Amino acid sequence: MTAKLVRSQGVTAPAGFRAAGIAAGIKASGALDLALVLNEGPDHTAAGVFTRNQVQAAPVLWSRQVLTTGRLRAVVLNSGGANACTGPLGFQDTHATAEAVAAALSDWGSETGAIEVAVCSTGLIGDRLPMDKVLAGVAEVVHEMAGGLSGGEEAARAIMTTDTVPKQVALHQPDNWTVGAMAKGAGMMAPALATMLCVLTTDAVAGSEALDTALRRAAARTFDRLDIDGSCSTNDTVLLLASGASEIAPTQEQLDDAVLQVCDDLCAQLQADAEGVTKRIAITVTGAPTEDDALTAARLLARDSLVKTALFGSDPNWGRVLAAVGMVPFTIDPNRITVAFNGQPTFADGVGAPGARDVDLSGADIDVSVDLGLGAGQATVRTTDLSHAYVEENSAYSS
Amino acid sequence: MTAKLVRSQGVTAPAGFRAAGIAAGIKASGALDLALVLNEGPDHTAAGVFTRNQVQAAPVLWSRQVLTTGRLRAVVLNSGGANACTGPLGFQDTHATAEAVAAALSDWGSETGAIEVAVCSTGLIGDRLPMDKVLAGVAEVVHEMAGGLSGGEEAARAIMTTDTVPKQVALHQPDNWTVGAMAKGAGMMAPALATMLCVLTTDAVAGSEALDTALRRAAARTFDRLDIDGSCSTNDTVLLLASGASEIAPTQEQLDDAVLQVCDDLCAQLQADAEGVTKRIAITVTGAPTEDDALTAARLLARDSLVKTALFGSDPNWGRVLAAVGMVPFTIDPNRITVAFNGQPTFADGVGAPGARDVDLSGADIDVSVDLGLGAGQATVRTTDLSHAYVEENSAYSS
Repeated sequence: MTAKLVRSQGVTAPAGFRAAGIAAGIKASGALDLALVLNEGPDHTAAGVFTRNQVQAAPVLWSRQVLTTGRLRAVVLNSGGANACTGPLGFQDTHATAEAVAAALSDWGSETGAIEVAVCSTGLIGDRLPMDKVLAGVAEVVHEMAGGLSGGEEAARAIMTTDTVPKQVALHQPDNWTVGAMAKGAGMMAPALATMLCVLTTDAVAGSEALDTALRRAAARTFDRLDIDGSCSTNDTVLLLASGASEIAPTQEQLDDAVLQVCDDLCAQLQADAEGVTKRIAITVTGAPTEDDALTAARLLARDSLVKTALFGSDPNWGRVLAAVGMVPFTIDPNRITVAFNGQPTFADGVGAPGARDVDLSGADIDVSVDLGLGAGQATVRTTDLSHAYVEENSAYSS
Repeated sequence: MTAKLVRSQGVTAPAGFRAAGIAAGIKASGALDLALVLNEGPDHTAAGVFTRNQVQAAPVLWSRQVLTTGRLRAVVLNSGGANACTGPLGFQDTHATAEAVAAALSDWGSETGAIEVAVCSTGLIGDRLPMDKVLAGVAEVVHEMAGGLSGGEEAARAIMTTDTVPKQVALHQPDNWTVGAMAKGAGMMAPALATMLCVLTTDAVAGSEALDTALRRAAARTFDRLDIDGSCSTNDTVLLLASGASEIAPTQEQLDDAVLQVCDDLCAQLQADAEGVTKRIAITVTGAPTEDDALTAARLLARDSLVKTALFGSDPNWGRVLAAVGMVPFTIDPNRITVAFNGQPTFADGVGAPGARDVDLSGADIDVSVDLGLGAGQATVRTTDLSHAYVEENSAYSS
């Protein structure tokens, strides 16, 4: 029996979790904008990874501190405002939100301290949150929590910003433990996680160090290799909570593998729904001196505006690929490089391949493969094209 | 008396230079596509700076070698093809072009060796040049050389690709020596010179080392700080030729200053005509630990797609500026940062300034100022917005 990946389920798929999403009025549109994920235990181990940006939003500063304990009972998330660059008062707002969640959960019968509540926010940088609405929403969302799957989907919808669809997935293991997850993010995606919020849940029995190891390994190979526009957010947060409710204790390798599969699937969903995407592009660099070198080269290609606009135009412009690769910070030999689009060679032995200008890139999926001919290092980065829709969305929408 | 900057004159403004531009049939459109600049002496000192891209076009490989002599008699330039990634046969084409120029000039009465002829090419990467047309053009363009200014303008027109206007300028010094120049470049502009070709001429008496010093200093402060789309070309070349015909020998400082002024003016022309530009943006970072740090931060901002699309939309989105600055590779303190658009403060003391969302950026010129509050390092980078026209031009035009 093999594990089963189900996209219609999310954070409430594993046993021991409840979730809800409501419209608290933070978004002027009246759409869902406040989500809560509750771990009912028996365990409350947790791990988190955060943006590498030096400008960090108040909820990131708060949640980093909370995660140093390796424990979490709940995560509260809002869209409609990032609470970033809001100073000490913004941090007080995050703290007050965690306190309100803890009080509401305690009243509801689940004794919780503020230090057990992570906070995530997403939306426009620079504005204070409407705290009257946030606090009233917190009181309401606790009562909305359902034990079924629907609460997970509502939570996934409540964290959407320019996302057009909610992203969730669950991986059911044959030996009866599960990893579930939800994520949001559609622009400002770059190494160090993309502008994304992601909550993973599992009913496995796992200590916080094991969770931390699994999450860091998975993030390095998935979210860190999703580079939509080279911009890194102030609010990126990925959390992993374990309830132990399955009473199954997987090995580290099994845990690593499951978390990696879930994160990889979320990345594919994030890429497919990225702002203005018309092409889903996978850039693979092989033959680099090291894996890090391959990743550096693949990132450089994923961020090159001329490569991205060419692919938007379905143009197999391998010359722009060569020009971008030529800027890597390690020594390369152009004569050893080969370039292929969708498996068809376009450049080898220092010159263009016959028919290179006629490769058909009209489909929505494009594989760009570059072999540097130097070593065994390889890496793949997912990105998208640079389209009119990307420019439209990011010039007309203050986000 | 002060020096006089004249944009209606170019490489033939200084004494001792001839130039011409013709339609050799390299471009299918029939537009001008081949240019020649001749230094008639009495001196033939020269210097050059080239792309830092590791993938270098055949004419760059050739001209680098030629410039090691510190001497040049002529520069032949073509648009309609970059002769990059064309292998050993492409290099033979460049060599044959230099030989043909030398032979034609010798026949015409100006004894020249191929090693005294620099070659520059621009256009699509990856295709061989139509050598029958190039060689026939070389024979023709030698006979078209005029002593007047019009030859300079024709040469400036013959090197245009997606440029909409020719770029030339001359700086006349009060003590009767002159620096003239022409340039092309409209996209693929980034540090290490932008995708640009530029030829500067002067009738000053100056040794090749003095020219080299002046050119490197000027390039570092001008072309290296023009970053349109973060893409660096395979063909970037900037040459400076001195005829000594004025019999005036300026000091190094005078030479440095004149070359800097000319390069700075060309940068302003290149920025104004960049592909898809609707905003001319100057990003100034002050208060950095060092000038290099300031430059790193300014470049990061100049390349951030979310900052560039916001400015296309006239949106004073200082939050995106903060998010981009937060990715600098040196330690910053967000609470010390101030951000201003067109002189109006938008962020200080860790929070947005009153009225920050209402700053009017509807004009074509936008100044973005970021003070890091750490030290005395400062730098300015010129860039443009990321517009629909940029996407259109670079997706619909294989270049």
